[in-house]
Amino acid sequence: MISDERNDAFQILQNRLATISDVYAAAAVLAWDRQTHMPEGGVGGRAEQLATLSRLAHEMLASPETGDLLARAGEHEPGSDEAAILRLARREYDRASRLPARLVAETSRATALAERAWIQARESSEWSLFAPHLERVLALKREEASYVDAEHPYDAMLDRYDPGTSTNRLRGMFDALKAGIVPLVREVSARLGEDRTVPLRGDFGEAAQEAFGRDVISRFGYDWSRGRQDRAVHPFCIDFGGPGDVRITTRIDPARLSVGLFGTCHEAGHALYEQGVDPSYSRTPLASGVSMGVHESQSRLWENLVARSRPFWFHFHPLLRDIFPGIPDDLETLYRAVNDVRPSEIRTEADELTYDLHILLRFELELALFEDGLAVADLPEAWNSKMEEYLGIVPENDALGVLQDTHWAIGLFGYFPSYTVGNVLSVQLFEAAVQGRPGILPEMERGEFGTLLGWLRENVHRHGKKYEPDDLIERATGNSPDTAPYLRYLETKFGELYDVG
Amino acid sequence: MISDERNDAFQILQNRLATISDVYAAAAVLAWDRQTHMPEGGVGGRAEQLATLSRLAHEMLASPETGDLLARAGEHEPGSDEAAILRLARREYDRASRLPARLVAETSRATALAERAWIQARESSEWSLFAPHLERVLALKREEASYVDAEHPYDAMLDRYDPGTSTNRLRGMFDALKAGIVPLVREVSARLGEDRTVPLRGDFGEAAQEAFGRDVISRFGYDWSRGRQDRAVHPFCIDFGGPGDVRITTRIDPARLSVGLFGTCHEAGHALYEQGVDPSYSRTPLASGVSMGVHESQSRLWENLVARSRPFWFHFHPLLRDIFPGIPDDLETLYRAVNDVRPSEIRTEADELTYDLHILLRFELELALFEDGLAVADLPEAWNSKMEEYLGIVPENDALGVLQDTHWAIGLFGYFPSYTVGNVLSVQLFEAAVQGRPGILPEMERGEFGTLLGWLRENVHRHGKKYEPDDLIERATGNSPDTAPYLRYLETKFGELYDVG
Repeated sequence: MISDERNDAFQILQNRLATISDVYAAAAVLAWDRQTHMPEGGVGGRAEQLATLSRLAHEMLASPETGDLLARAGEHEPGSDEAAILRLARREYDRASRLPARLVAETSRATALAERAWIQARESSEWSLFAPHLERVLALKREEASYVDAEHPYDAMLDRYDPGTSTNRLRGMFDALKAGIVPLVREVSARLGEDRTVPLRGDFGEAAQEAFGRDVISRFGYDWSRGRQDRAVHPFCIDFGGPGDVRITTRIDPARLSVGLFGTCHEAGHALYEQGVDPSYSRTPLASGVSMGVHESQSRLWENLVARSRPFWFHFHPLLRDIFPGIPDDLETLYRAVNDVRPSEIRTEADELTYDLHILLRFELELALFEDGLAVADLPEAWNSKMEEYLGIVPENDALGVLQDTHWAIGLFGYFPSYTVGNVLSVQLFEAAVQGRPGILPEMERGEFGTLLGWLRENVHRHGKKYEPDDLIERATGNSPDTAPYLRYLETKFGELYDVG
Repeated sequence: MISDERNDAFQILQNRLATISDVYAAAAVLAWDRQTHMPEGGVGGRAEQLATLSRLAHEMLASPETGDLLARAGEHEPGSDEAAILRLARREYDRASRLPARLVAETSRATALAERAWIQARESSEWSLFAPHLERVLALKREEASYVDAEHPYDAMLDRYDPGTSTNRLRGMFDALKAGIVPLVREVSARLGEDRTVPLRGDFGEAAQEAFGRDVISRFGYDWSRGRQDRAVHPFCIDFGGPGDVRITTRIDPARLSVGLFGTCHEAGHALYEQGVDPSYSRTPLASGVSMGVHESQSRLWENLVARSRPFWFHFHPLLRDIFPGIPDDLETLYRAVNDVRPSEIRTEADELTYDLHILLRFELELALFEDGLAVADLPEAWNSKMEEYLGIVPENDALGVLQDTHWAIGLFGYFPSYTVGNVLSVQLFEAAVQGRPGILPEMERGEFGTLLGWLRENVHRHGKKYEPDDLIERATGNSPDTAPYLRYLETKFGELYDVG
């Protein structure tokens, strides 16, 4: 039996957590607006507003009152939502109360300025416009790491995105993938032959592309009454503290059909996760996806396991041809086009097979920056040399190389590995779903995804942050995270496509 | 000389005020999003986020710490920005700290319920659905007035929107306007003849309308790098604590050209004011327009004195005809169409001449409610009888009458008079501008507005809230607020248009 005092403290704590959630949600709305609609003149003011909101939320979270409420809230039934709320709130409080409010505000301001500088630097491919901002952001993130007890300073970064993982564990994961993928990419590269993507290049009306993308993700189950889609330079998915308003953004390239389509499927995968979280978790620490790795497993599952599969195209091939008559009338040619392997410079446009090598490169560079083995000034050169080693190409300029991603500008060190964690988990989850519900593949051939989405809702989405990531994966698949199914999947799929192995 | 202690207190106060400004700005971004882009599923979460932000801002403003800083910040050089900041901050603090938190929370809850009831009542034109809610809101606003030292309880309402004005003064203003406008409307009504607006009715493509509106306000000087335009059911202008991001919204009616065009000019008038405030005032109490009345003088100046004038149409008539060939080729016919007088039920669609009678009616009814001279139950009857007296028409039902505006539901008593104050001031300011810079009218005929905007920037916009409204008007025009120029303007303009007087 729980005492009244404890209940009172828990109730006051919940109100406080709800207030904090509201402030973060407001900040997310401001961030969405900044990347989709805000005029240039808003830059300065918006940076101040975001800095203020994150400072206020941080102050409320890290305050002695919160610590006191957490101490008085006692323990709750193991496995209950209340127990999970307390576990997460305590973790967030520990993390926040170690960081000085000054550092939080400075980071928010520095990243807002760095993001703007990054946009300009990328436009003109001028590393020097961005480098001083990156120095500043990196210094702040290293200071942040110094406040956290961890074996490795980079662990403090990883913990924010994938609680429970570690630098060592990721080293092991990337070693296994490197050993499997680098030779496979070499074998495939030797047999590339002609560019199979030719049918996906040309002149595809933006409105028609957008309409097709909307149709596809509507069939996936994206709920437009609880979301919307806008254009953004760097596509993203964002939620505001609950499943009622989960938005995606897309970039459409009139010359390349795959950019908008697979980008849309990817962001919709994130959005389906957020839209599927138990609504009763809104404004609590349980709202939203459990980790970036699991989040990415959902976006990659819909982008790759679904939208780059034969069953998917069995249904959508004729529909795409109705819109763009230049699309080949042979399904297999289209399937080969969307799965073309071609080592290239840009991560977000990388094919499924080479994608993880882009992440491997970033993981190794981040680690070197944090281990003092690499200076910001040397980053472009280090980037290019790893590109040559893993992918056999050197970017023409920094815009196509080290300046391509926004992550470092906004302080997201430790985030990139989640993409590969997501790829690994996507295959484990998809195989478990198909094994549990054999109707999934035949449904996909009819453009129906209800059974697949239902399995994901039941086993992943609805739980929000209630279970730890490893626990969630174990419950859903019966296994721990494991690279073997993913490597098998890549070898089978691309072995067949390129007559390898 | 100012002591260090006082300087420190002032600096800490300024930081606190900047934080409060940021939180209000964030709330404004959330409000903008809610009315332009938010999906339906966001309603519940957004209400929580907005309630949290306004509670946090109110708590910071009304806190003893703020009171202490204000006491220690001392006095500053009269006429300095610092002195103005202190004057305004003290006024805001006094206002906020007098109100019990319980009253603020109850008002927020009661108005939320009343707004919902009002929407249903208006849909079904059923006064009884709304009346009990209005009783409650009115009681709370009267309680609010009881905490304020004022000659008249209604003064406390007015003070929020037009500091320095009073019930007595508005009585004088409305008496003068009534004496001038009611007989003029009667005379004009007797000569109305055929509907002159026929050329402005038809089928006007929305995209073309929007493009024309954008062209017009670009010529006015609306700076798109510091703003944007979106669609909204109820058009508004909104800023986020500074001149760097000032947005407008517009409603476009494909069947009536004037709705979108004059609505756009109106909101742009508000926006030009906000875009013109001294950028150094951002995040201080001096940021943004000084009062609702002066704000409305800017929107009405651009909507009526400019966009409903002959010089304006001298330039824009051929441009409009290029887009919509059905527009009459005779300038005078177009001028008469945009200045058609027609007593009607709905305030927001009223012509320039009858508009103030809609406000007069609301002012008299609000006053009667506050003076206990009128019961909420008798409001519909009182409304209809005044409509008949002033405009010669009786609304068909309450949806077209007493239920048409949202203001009372959300507690905005004392707000309506600002619309008429704005009309009065718009003519005083425009005449002072034209007198000071005679080039303004010839420029307008060429579609140029730089000299007019320059005069407004210099004499009104840049000052933000630095001067009290009366002081600002006196500095700009050499006179106190005065109904005589406005009445002269109406008599001249509509006398000529309808061959009256």
